[in-house]
Amino acid sequence: MTEINQMTTNPFDDDKLHEECGVFGIFGHKEAAAHAALGLHALQHRGQEACGIFSYDGQQFHSHKGMGLVGDNFSSTDVIGQLKGNSAIGHVRYATTGGTVLRNVQPLFAEFEFGGLAIAHNGNLTNTQAVRRTLVRRGCIFQSDMDTEVIVHLVAVSLYATVEDRIIDALRQIEGAYSLVAMTKDSLIGVRDPNGVRPLCLGRLDDTYILASESCAFDIIGADFVRDVEPGEVVIIDSNGVRSIKPFGEQKGRFCVFEYIYFARPDSIIENRSVYEVRKAIGAELARENGVEADMVVPVPDSGVPSSIGYAAEANIAFELGIIRNHYVGRTFIEPTQEIRHLGVRMKHNANISSVKGKRIILVDDSIVRGTTSKKIVDMMRQAGAAEVHMRISSPPTAWPCFYGIDTPKREKLLAGQYNIEEMAEHIGADSLAFISIDGMYRAVGEAKRNNDDPQFCDACFTGEYPTRLQDEEDLASDEMQPSLPLLAEKGK
Amino acid sequence: MTEINQMTTNPFDDDKLHEECGVFGIFGHKEAAAHAALGLHALQHRGQEACGIFSYDGQQFHSHKGMGLVGDNFSSTDVIGQLKGNSAIGHVRYATTGGTVLRNVQPLFAEFEFGGLAIAHNGNLTNTQAVRRTLVRRGCIFQSDMDTEVIVHLVAVSLYATVEDRIIDALRQIEGAYSLVAMTKDSLIGVRDPNGVRPLCLGRLDDTYILASESCAFDIIGADFVRDVEPGEVVIIDSNGVRSIKPFGEQKGRFCVFEYIYFARPDSIIENRSVYEVRKAIGAELARENGVEADMVVPVPDSGVPSSIGYAAEANIAFELGIIRNHYVGRTFIEPTQEIRHLGVRMKHNANISSVKGKRIILVDDSIVRGTTSKKIVDMMRQAGAAEVHMRISSPPTAWPCFYGIDTPKREKLLAGQYNIEEMAEHIGADSLAFISIDGMYRAVGEAKRNNDDPQFCDACFTGEYPTRLQDEEDLASDEMQPSLPLLAEKGK
Amino acid sequence: MTEINQMTTNPFDDDKLHEECGVFGIFGHKEAAAHAALGLHALQHRGQEACGIFSYDGQQFHSHKGMGLVGDNFSSTDVIGQLKGNSAIGHVRYATTGGTVLRNVQPLFAEFEFGGLAIAHNGNLTNTQAVRRTLVRRGCIFQSDMDTEVIVHLVAVSLYATVEDRIIDALRQIEGAYSLVAMTKDSLIGVRDPNGVRPLCLGRLDDTYILASESCAFDIIGADFVRDVEPGEVVIIDSNGVRSIKPFGEQKGRFCVFEYIYFARPDSIIENRSVYEVRKAIGAELARENGVEADMVVPVPDSGVPSSIGYAAEANIAFELGIIRNHYVGRTFIEPTQEIRHLGVRMKHNANISSVKGKRIILVDDSIVRGTTSKKIVDMMRQAGAAEVHMRISSPPTAWPCFYGIDTPKREKLLAGQYNIEEMAEHIGADSLAFISIDGMYRAVGEAKRNNDDPQFCDACFTGEYPTRLQDEEDLASDEMQPSLPLLAEKGK
Amino acid sequence: MTEINQMTTNPFDDDKLHEECGVFGIFGHKEAAAHAALGLHALQHRGQEACGIFSYDGQQFHSHKGMGLVGDNFSSTDVIGQLKGNSAIGHVRYATTGGTVLRNVQPLFAEFEFGGLAIAHNGNLTNTQAVRRTLVRRGCIFQSDMDTEVIVHLVAVSLYATVEDRIIDALRQIEGAYSLVAMTKDSLIGVRDPNGVRPLCLGRLDDTYILASESCAFDIIGADFVRDVEPGEVVIIDSNGVRSIKPFGEQKGRFCVFEYIYFARPDSIIENRSVYEVRKAIGAELARENGVEADMVVPVPDSGVPSSIGYAAEANIAFELGIIRNHYVGRTFIEPTQEIRHLGVRMKHNANISSVKGKRIILVDDSIVRGTTSKKIVDMMRQAGAAEVHMRISSPPTAWPCFYGIDTPKREKLLAGQYNIEEMAEHIGADSLAFISIDGMYRAVGEAKRNNDDPQFCDACFTGEYPTRLQDEEDLASDEMQPSLPLLAEKGK
Repeated sequence: MTEINQMTTNPFDDDKLHEECGVFGIFGHKEAAAHAALGLHALQHRGQEACGIFSYDGQQFHSHKGMGLVGDNFSSTDVIGQLKGNSAIGHVRYATTGGTVLRNVQPLFAEFEFGGLAIAHNGNLTNTQAVRRTLVRRGCIFQSDMDTEVIVHLVAVSLYATVEDRIIDALRQIEGAYSLVAMTKDSLIGVRDPNGVRPLCLGRLDDTYILASESCAFDIIGADFVRDVEPGEVVIIDSNGVRSIKPFGEQKGRFCVFEYIYFARPDSIIENRSVYEVRKAIGAELARENGVEADMVVPVPDSGVPSSIGYAAEANIAFELGIIRNHYVGRTFIEPTQEIRHLGVRMKHNANISSVKGKRIILVDDSIVRGTTSKKIVDMMRQAGAAEVHMRISSPPTAWPCFYGIDTPKREKLLAGQYNIEEMAEHIGADSLAFISIDGMYRAVGEAKRNNDDPQFCDACFTGEYPTRLQDEEDLASDEMQPSLPLLAEKGK
Repeated sequence: MTEINQMTTNPFDDDKLHEECGVFGIFGHKEAAAHAALGLHALQHRGQEACGIFSYDGQQFHSHKGMGLVGDNFSSTDVIGQLKGNSAIGHVRYATTGGTVLRNVQPLFAEFEFGGLAIAHNGNLTNTQAVRRTLVRRGCIFQSDMDTEVIVHLVAVSLYATVEDRIIDALRQIEGAYSLVAMTKDSLIGVRDPNGVRPLCLGRLDDTYILASESCAFDIIGADFVRDVEPGEVVIIDSNGVRSIKPFGEQKGRFCVFEYIYFARPDSIIENRSVYEVRKAIGAELARENGVEADMVVPVPDSGVPSSIGYAAEANIAFELGIIRNHYVGRTFIEPTQEIRHLGVRMKHNANISSVKGKRIILVDDSIVRGTTSKKIVDMMRQAGAAEVHMRISSPPTAWPCFYGIDTPKREKLLAGQYNIEEMAEHIGADSLAFISIDGMYRAVGEAKRNNDDPQFCDACFTGEYPTRLQDEEDLASDEMQPSLPLLAEKGK
Repeated sequence: MTEINQMTTNPFDDDKLHEECGVFGIFGHKEAAAHAALGLHALQHRGQEACGIFSYDGQQFHSHKGMGLVGDNFSSTDVIGQLKGNSAIGHVRYATTGGTVLRNVQPLFAEFEFGGLAIAHNGNLTNTQAVRRTLVRRGCIFQSDMDTEVIVHLVAVSLYATVEDRIIDALRQIEGAYSLVAMTKDSLIGVRDPNGVRPLCLGRLDDTYILASESCAFDIIGADFVRDVEPGEVVIIDSNGVRSIKPFGEQKGRFCVFEYIYFARPDSIIENRSVYEVRKAIGAELARENGVEADMVVPVPDSGVPSSIGYAAEANIAFELGIIRNHYVGRTFIEPTQEIRHLGVRMKHNANISSVKGKRIILVDDSIVRGTTSKKIVDMMRQAGAAEVHMRISSPPTAWPCFYGIDTPKREKLLAGQYNIEEMAEHIGADSLAFISIDGMYRAVGEAKRNNDDPQFCDACFTGEYPTRLQDEEDLASDEMQPSLPLLAEKGK
Repeated sequence: MTEINQMTTNPFDDDKLHEECGVFGIFGHKEAAAHAALGLHALQHRGQEACGIFSYDGQQFHSHKGMGLVGDNFSSTDVIGQLKGNSAIGHVRYATTGGTVLRNVQPLFAEFEFGGLAIAHNGNLTNTQAVRRTLVRRGCIFQSDMDTEVIVHLVAVSLYATVEDRIIDALRQIEGAYSLVAMTKDSLIGVRDPNGVRPLCLGRLDDTYILASESCAFDIIGADFVRDVEPGEVVIIDSNGVRSIKPFGEQKGRFCVFEYIYFARPDSIIENRSVYEVRKAIGAELARENGVEADMVVPVPDSGVPSSIGYAAEANIAFELGIIRNHYVGRTFIEPTQEIRHLGVRMKHNANISSVKGKRIILVDDSIVRGTTSKKIVDMMRQAGAAEVHMRISSPPTAWPCFYGIDTPKREKLLAGQYNIEEMAEHIGADSLAFISIDGMYRAVGEAKRNNDDPQFCDACFTGEYPTRLQDEEDLASDEMQPSLPLLAEKGK
């Protein structure tokens, strides 16, 4: 049996930004792995390409990893039964590169002098290459393409004595966005980078503590939300309870605002805001900022639904399912021949012709990336007989790539990186196009306005103002050597 | 490699009725099989367990069948490329029995004296056993458990000369519900039973004619809806165009009303009614018949959404996503241990706590079958802090099993087969429970009221009035011998 | 999961004739299926492409089939455990056509008025097409390409009352070679065609009766050989013991002499002759008929070993392993690029250079089919430094195709169908080439000589004298219609 | 798709010693990977559980690994086509532990500062644990259970500048038996430990140099044998040709004598001796030392054949195939139920009853490990009617475990570790039992006798005199900590 390199990216989804990962950890529950599987399932929207769980039973670490969905890999009592122990961590992954191999699936594990450490990571480091080169020079051997492995090696070569100190030592050497969960023989550790770009929160189920990317992972197992892990905080959970270390001092943090707009699940609560309510509020702001006379508000399913509800209620226009989504789109689908390629968008969406025919419609979507899908959807609405098609977007124009764990095209592939709004409207063929303003978005999340001197959120994809240095990008520009693993290594047939 | 018996039924979906099949046929297009794959994908909601396509290239029939989704089986140009020819038929299948083997996947094929015939069937015959016994006595050998095979053998042993005459000869001997598509070397044939219980419609794409269970399958390939095939009509498509035969004379038909309520896709148009608009109209009727003071209308996703929209608009109450659905529920999932079994419902649904907390909510769902899911959802709403939970159902109480191609539990397992509405409300724990009335439902589909002497629809699951004789059920009661294939035959490891 | 069409023919084995099938049946043992699996394993040399077992537990038939080896398909207690019951039949298969699908794997099963019948067949019918056409005309539907299915349909449509009578009725309508085992609810039935071309024998293990193609299948389960089933005999085993019917009267039989030469296992005893001793005797005859001065006798492994031992002993020349066989040749292997194609033969065989260098060697092989392998082996011996290479063949020249269940090339592809011995020697590059004479072969099996008026064996591949009419061949010559199943039907990716 | 832990050990083979690995390397051929696949196929007898090939194309390393046979993993032009480049190394593996995961499949690869290094290893280190502990302490992270990884890390952390120097630096720190092939961007490197316990030889095909465990791997690709790599020699092949370094000075070497007796292929030539001729010579010595009156010499197939030929010729007794081997025993087979477990041995071997009945036979086998198989075979011969059964073994009694790359049971499980010869004869039920003497064995390989002060070969399994220190064994006795990877890590379902 060989490892299989699966092309799991749905070609019809490539006009969305993708969250790269979700993490989960649990300490002190006799069904730790089963709860981890449920928690990862609740976080599945954060990564669908691969998943993995490590557990520890007091004597031995156990693990299971696989390509694909949590439900497809952790569905049997056999698998869960092998993941013995009272603590477990898990990971779901979306790969930014076209192919994924099992080697790149997290959590990672390493055996240290003091014992084993399993680690799972959501985010992206911005100085991976430089640190990696240094490590390779001193004899570290890398087994994967993941920046997470850099952290593992930094922990391994640290001269500090305790795991906590070694982790902190490692964190001081890395830059970028990271929410980590790590498991040792004695403890569960959670870390959020100083900017707190990616989410991580703490929950509790009786005497059991849980860490998860989003609070919806607590709901599925009946646990209570305790609090967010704070930006720059290291949380250590062991048999004595929860301790907190702030190796970087108090940090204000700049949470990723796109998590509210699109990535997070609507039923999650992050930094004391309901994602669903934020989205409705954005829809209402959008209606106030960019009203237009129309017969109905139509969400682009499914992500456009909450903001559509907010828009429709604010504008007092009927909310209608003018587009029907086919939920059976698998991870792969027929590669259409040239002849029928134009039918592609209909694999996933179909116009509800009898509703939209002859009507003036307001389409509400969360973002425009390349613009290819927007164009097809507007076109589909026109073919279905819509009299007018007005596009409203519940985010500002996405004009800059993300380097913090979101898969974005380069600036030159982003529609808003190339065109102004009028040109974009023409490109997608809408009668009108409007985006929420930066300040409108900040109002929807409860701020008076953006503090331009010290922004409350990471909004780099809209503003180009990145909260950290981007060393790998700089190095890439100056063409440094990149160590790399064998091409096709361990690729199966 | 052995055939594999996959348990593909999602255990958390077992409180829904399931459509058993969808069919598709296309004649005279050089990409017949690719279009059939797209059409079947649009009909995927009618069956997710298995799928198959046969094509004919003027000299040879070709086929491909597989377990699982259309997208997973017909995703490669290799597979599509092997299905050569200008005509093709296809089938998606949901099995009523727990396991499915490839042997039971349609279309079926048989070589006759006059050449090959491929056939695909949606529906269920009610005199299968009696006809099958007769056929076995005269030496026919059955290879599957499917009632469709009875039709194939009747065609094979018919003494008539032409395929059409043989098919009509076969139809005269069978009873029940059936929408068939069949493909010969020269023609594509569509048949709908005299009651027209299951849907079948005719579409056109330039010079190409298409048959499909629902019109949404035309939309995906850019074809136009022409008309429904009429109850009791045989439609023959060949190089001369479309011919129609009515071997049973003109028939009024009694279309399955549950197709409007739940089975069909909302963007389909059946017998000149938009499924989506019917559902909204049912919601509005429900609001008029069973209004209640509340803060929000919450759909049970996804099937309850259109009727919720209708209800909310009619009642002028806010429409809110109080329940969030996890769309990544795979075909299998973790079998929860005893400890965490009560968490099951949350695999698929989670309360949007911040929205429903402290609110009086109206839950709208399409039907109650066993009541297990309704009970869990009401309970989940209460745990999320809902002040009041009022359940409204957009169908009358489902009190009788279906024998026409829908997988229903026996009457004693149907909640409405055992209890009155008050008892049901108590069972599921709702503050109030109401169903739409029979006449309210008929009004929503555009009739003044039910014609009790000659009902306009098949509504047997609500009324127990079956439009045909149920011979197999009668025989079963009188304990006739049932021929059967080997248990586990061709079941893989 | 789709059925998979595996190319299982080893490309380096294509210069051998192949037995097509082996059969096994057992009646009255509580571990019937486990014994059937062992028995089929012992018969694996008769077919390696697919295998299947049916069992009957008094109420229900059970089955399991798979592509590949018995050991790979019946290796788990799960599979064996599902094959419940006290009687079982099984089959191993080598397909004559390039591809095999699960549909074509035996045993076949059919449900009749009187109950189920499972049947497994070794041999080949010579009037399949004519009978099949007749059956299709009267409405029989064929599901496979196997001639065995013709027998099943003939049983199904027979007007006789009992299974035995129906089987006999069917046998009267077919021509060719067949050794059958069949299982009903009450009995195990064995049949051998009037010529007894293929072997079938009866064994006993306490109160359990067993049927198998060869006696080596008795040894593996510790059963005793009772007797051969006689040519034209029908043996019926039920709870009353063993009955015998001779529907064709007493038959002398013409057993396939090639079974002695190559097909059968050396440890089998057929018609009272040890296959191993016959092969040694052929080697001795060959030495007497075609002696040559040499330093060593080298078998072409593995089939040439027994006749080499006989040759070496008779000629008093050293027996040496001058060719070493690689036993790890899988069912598939690297398709060599043009560059290295000439290395092909060495995948399986290598010269034992230190032994053969400078020596005069006598190579002993069982037959020459196309001559491609012989040529390569002679060449390999020369490259290894052999001083002289004399080829001795333990069968007469194979000049005619077999129509009785052996996969042979057409006459024009058989080296001996095109060339005389001198030309053949030149073709393969040997210093000398000799075959055993027809009468020498008859002597080795214990006859004084061949009775040309009424030959004691089927030796058609050497003489062209076929013991039955070859109607399908005649029809093919006159270009009759051939019904055929869909191309690629149920072929997986 | 998850990695699968396959139990690939044939349960009926567990009474043989197993070679653990074979290695192959090629430099400067445009079809490097295809030749590596052929070469590994020829070395398949040295390991059947897994295999892997790395190639280098001047810019990039490529790899493919898989569980199972070379032919099953490297059978397609696709796979071979992806392994681009003019140099390649490969490995076949037999695992000593019950299960194997892909993670443990060689070659290993590491990216160093100077570029990539792929390495494949045959043998076993005896100070792995101590070195590993040191490496872990300084921050090295281990990914596998293989001792080979110790070498890779030693190279990685070496302070020397060139690859050659780093490798030599690493070798100075390890003890035990190893034959290595390694590939860098510029060179192919071969190493044999100072005792030369495992074989490694150099071949040539035009301008292409090749390294392989045995010379039979040269024959399959048409290459010429040049010479053995010498004990303690490092051979460096690059574009300038072949260089030799002897970092340990001139070494006499103590080659594993069991390679001659059983492990190596009979057509290989090692240290100027033909393995086949050595085996025949052992048979002849055995006949001289332990003659007995009998009717036939019967080899236990297949390994006993050459020594049987030697025995039979020397003793002038007929050589007969009294045991027939079933070559279709797959890697797994039916787990026999209690009832039929005693039939186990017959899965692989059957008595040739008609030959052995009533005869006095001499069984010749290569070794007795646990004695379980010998007992069953003697018993099978008696059941077949043999009058007398004399067992002759072509090695001295195997009384001590091997720590140099051969899978042996502990001393207390070795029959000769517990019993004297008389007791062993009784245990296996033979009429007589004899082993070749130590000096007889040395005579057969061409020595006058064993030099007890400085033995010419490693014969530790017979004498208990190990040529190196056994530090891991000593540590184990003193109960040192053993770092270990997660149990079941990456184990699939």
